[in-house]
Amino acid sequence: MLYLEDLHVGARFETASHRLDAAEIKAFAAQYDPQPFHLEEGAAKQSFFGELVASGWHVAAISMRLVVQGGPKFAAGIVGLGGELRWRKPTRPGDTLRVVCEIVDIQESRSNPGRGTVTVVNETKNQRDEVVQWLRCSLFVPRRDAKSEP
Amino acid sequence: MLYLEDLHVGARFETASHRLDAAEIKAFAAQYDPQPFHLEEGAAKQSFFGELVASGWHVAAISMRLVVQGGPKFAAGIVGLGGELRWRKPTRPGDTLRVVCEIVDIQESRSNPGRGTVTVVNETKNQRDEVVQWLRCSLFVPRRDAKSEP
Repeated sequence: MLYLEDLHVGARFETASHRLDAAEIKAFAAQYDPQPFHLEEGAAKQSFFGELVASGWHVAAISMRLVVQGGPKFAAGIVGLGGELRWRKPTRPGDTLRVVCEIVDIQESRSNPGRGTVTVVNETKNQRDEVVQWLRCSLFVPRRDAKSEP
Repeated sequence: MLYLEDLHVGARFETASHRLDAAEIKAFAAQYDPQPFHLEEGAAKQSFFGELVASGWHVAAISMRLVVQGGPKFAAGIVGLGGELRWRKPTRPGDTLRVVCEIVDIQESRSNPGRGTVTVVNETKNQRDEVVQWLRCSLFVPRRDAKSEP
């Protein structure tokens, strides 16, 4: 379990990897992003992308699972406030994704000394080491010594 | 079908709504964000949140579906490049979400006259009109007259 005191800027973590297939891309899309280029190869060919690609939100969700399962173990869990998100390249059936996390900023809270805000950059990379998604996200992280405070 | 020429800054769209239940929150979490506060009421009570709440990525995915199904019908679909995302309030079982979209910027492409970039702000609101998620996102939108260009 990592508390605010345990962290330093520059610390890096790398997750396990996950290979997507077309069925998984279509299943997510049917539920959350039902657009032709995520649902069916024929329609995708006629689209902006010219081929079946994963929903960006699917890439975000897979990245989250990889980080939860194999990223840094912050004491309160991964409690995100939001941040900046970029989809840099399409993700296609057969791609294998992993996430490289780096702590880029640590702020102690002035209003609540029991916790701070940690900013991470999570790069989701494919098997060619291309960054398909870039996320800078702020997370709540508690201090260890806060547990004994009233 | 909306092309770049059809759009103006300030245009607003509102989607239909979706009511989440605990089963849906847990099912998404089991697949994409398996943390105690998204998975099980008892464990959630002991967590940072003190109750079961939806994954932020689940809120983002539901918001996307609402926008795809009932938001503006851009000609190429909703092709997002990324943007800024904020989770402002937790989403709980029983909450009913809808998305209010507003076009805040329109840029014609200098490198590719056939399309432009449209920036939208999508506010996901609950049944109390609280903004639970705020997203500013840039989208590719083609020009209508580009279809006849080489």
